[in-house]
Amino acid sequence: MKAEVVTIGSEILAGLIPEGNFRLIAEHLASEGVAVTRHTVVPDEREALGSVLRAALGRSPLVITTGGLGATPDDVTRRVLASALGCKLIFRESLLAELQEKYRRRGRVPSPALEAMALVPAGAQPVPNPVGMAPGFLLHAESSLLCALPGVPAEMEAMLTATLLPLIKREGGGSLVVETLRTAGIPESVVYERVAPVVGEEVSVGYQPSAGRVDLRLSVTDGEKGRAALVATVRRLAEALGPALYGRGRVTLEETVLEMLQRVKRSLAVAESLTGGRIGAALTQVPGSSAVFRGGVAAYSDAAKQRLLGVSERTLARHGAVSAQTAREMASGARRALEAEIAISATGLAGPGGGSAEKPIGLVYFGYSDARATKAFGVRFGGNRELIQQQAVTVALNLLRLALIGRLDGLVPSASRQAAQDR
Amino acid sequence: MKAEVVTIGSEILAGLIPEGNFRLIAEHLASEGVAVTRHTVVPDEREALGSVLRAALGRSPLVITTGGLGATPDDVTRRVLASALGCKLIFRESLLAELQEKYRRRGRVPSPALEAMALVPAGAQPVPNPVGMAPGFLLHAESSLLCALPGVPAEMEAMLTATLLPLIKREGGGSLVVETLRTAGIPESVVYERVAPVVGEEVSVGYQPSAGRVDLRLSVTDGEKGRAALVATVRRLAEALGPALYGRGRVTLEETVLEMLQRVKRSLAVAESLTGGRIGAALTQVPGSSAVFRGGVAAYSDAAKQRLLGVSERTLARHGAVSAQTAREMASGARRALEAEIAISATGLAGPGGGSAEKPIGLVYFGYSDARATKAFGVRFGGNRELIQQQAVTVALNLLRLALIGRLDGLVPSASRQAAQDR
Repeated sequence: MKAEVVTIGSEILAGLIPEGNFRLIAEHLASEGVAVTRHTVVPDEREALGSVLRAALGRSPLVITTGGLGATPDDVTRRVLASALGCKLIFRESLLAELQEKYRRRGRVPSPALEAMALVPAGAQPVPNPVGMAPGFLLHAESSLLCALPGVPAEMEAMLTATLLPLIKREGGGSLVVETLRTAGIPESVVYERVAPVVGEEVSVGYQPSAGRVDLRLSVTDGEKGRAALVATVRRLAEALGPALYGRGRVTLEETVLEMLQRVKRSLAVAESLTGGRIGAALTQVPGSSAVFRGGVAAYSDAAKQRLLGVSERTLARHGAVSAQTAREMASGARRALEAEIAISATGLAGPGGGSAEKPIGLVYFGYSDARATKAFGVRFGGNRELIQQQAVTVALNLLRLALIGRLDGLVPSASRQAAQDR
Repeated sequence: MKAEVVTIGSEILAGLIPEGNFRLIAEHLASEGVAVTRHTVVPDEREALGSVLRAALGRSPLVITTGGLGATPDDVTRRVLASALGCKLIFRESLLAELQEKYRRRGRVPSPALEAMALVPAGAQPVPNPVGMAPGFLLHAESSLLCALPGVPAEMEAMLTATLLPLIKREGGGSLVVETLRTAGIPESVVYERVAPVVGEEVSVGYQPSAGRVDLRLSVTDGEKGRAALVATVRRLAEALGPALYGRGRVTLEETVLEMLQRVKRSLAVAESLTGGRIGAALTQVPGSSAVFRGGVAAYSDAAKQRLLGVSERTLARHGAVSAQTAREMASGARRALEAEIAISATGLAGPGGGSAEKPIGLVYFGYSDARATKAFGVRFGGNRELIQQQAVTVALNLLRLALIGRLDGLVPSASRQAAQDR
């Protein structure tokens, strides 16, 4: 089965609102074997929307629209959608009653605006909205299925997974099979060199690099045979990628290190300078991180490094804040200050100001400290402030991961050299 | 002038790569008065790309494509693009020489793959790439202008601003005029109630809510008269929105508070619990933040709150970590520990675990401390862990902003109540 997605939103085209639904839809459809062949963003205008919808329904067995199902004055697309499909809008008394009841349960007085949401194209089946107010609808049109969902990503995703995906599954799904392999610590060019020779013709592979991490997306389309080829390819890739491969599927690097820490029952602290809190923020984004994460110190100033982390004045004077020595003292200091068994640190120059010939922008030192040893590694990143900070988060977390699998000595310096050369 | 954007990328359609160019293009074009009327994402396939391109060139005077201009094996679109336009690819010797020279300057050995990048459709003018390798091209086709740019956002944006935007400007630009007003602290429904009555018919308005912030995008299309209406509307809106309006144009809340601190020469420290470093990360994302930001403590555990911030054991035992008292002691403790003149704090429950009837998930206390006073405010947020953390960052920064303009007492409690009710 193939699908198209039509996003309805003048505000997205005006650059005001980011398009936040497409990737979620594509990932969910892929997990049911359905490939998306086109995505179109159109304004909330009758003519443009009508022609895009008719063309999509003529081409694809499944068309999903997002947006324009609310009841605010700019949500005119319910009407435009019905007229584009050549059917009338029917007022559903029972739907209105449900919406009013929902409002009352939330302690709000039902507003007359709800009536607009109870309008559904003739012949359509309403799709309940478990998160917000606006219902969607399913409609068979021109031998295709149209599924209209709201534009708020959390609502759209809940309705997609509760109603549309089970429907696709019942109908047998598609023949696309996908697998994602996630790597960190080696640049895209090196990932490519290792991956290309071991991937056969029957498997498609896509590379998604982002700030020191590279995701590999593998897909096959032809059922049994393809599935076997995919399994064999994944096995060869795991060998070729070695410890750079940290996970499969949707797992993140943050989740991976937190799970590893939980497994070995070790607590963690972080000491950050150039990242200003990003490493801690990345870790605490994961639910349940409090089980191992003790806290962090964003020691942006030298005084803070001394007072909170116990970095010595002599180290700062002799080697500077951006040095292996400071990174080491930050890590061991964070371990003491936050009473954690393991600590990592990052200190460097994110720019745009403050670089020198000796210590250029992008130079970052990372520290790792546990009961047995404290080490530091230097890396030189390219890119702007944002990219340098993002890459620093990846390398800090990856350093921790490699330490936990006992590959710190063997791998980090070479990964660092590569990271320093790349970009 | 109107434009369409065509994104070429099978990997984007497969949900592997996020589409990262469209919003940048729409914003830049809007700043030159050009409205985008459609955005289509198509796979790297001759037939689909060809039909989309021909339709776009038939409809719109300007068509911008992104993606598929590199030299890796999956970048076949240079060829597909030429064939879709019905023209031959010409090998440009001088372009190859430039690319080879660029490689040498970066200390790399020119690769044979560069030859693919020196292929340009007949009649096209190459667009230099000041950031990366792959050049783009400009081509007049079917009375429209086609501009092909690479898919890496940093490269695409550099080429757009260096080559295409000046060209649009020389040709007089478009008639669209836009203005963005940024608000924080009041929910979208309240922004709407205040905005709707003072915006005239000639001005279009779009609302973009995100985690406690609401951006208003105003646009007019008809030159002189529209411009005057826009200026008058912005004046009325500034009055209607009051202190909730924190900025205009591209300025962020983070930049606003950092600029205010710099103006009054005050240093800042943060103490975070549920946000785990996000407030510090948001502030240090801004270049130059080190001038006022001293650092932060992410005191995720009670022990860290005591040791690093001096929160008393009695306070934690009597009121708990999520309380106004703890928020106050965290803020004053951060001020002392990081030797800053002002400190803000946030402590709360981000979930999904750990809530109770008395202290439900989403309950967050914020502290503010300066030499004269230390205060705390409680807010109850809706949404999941991610949304609760994001909203907490907004409210913490907005609290600081309101304190700096002397509106802390008057505004925060009401904004808090609203935030607690909303969502």
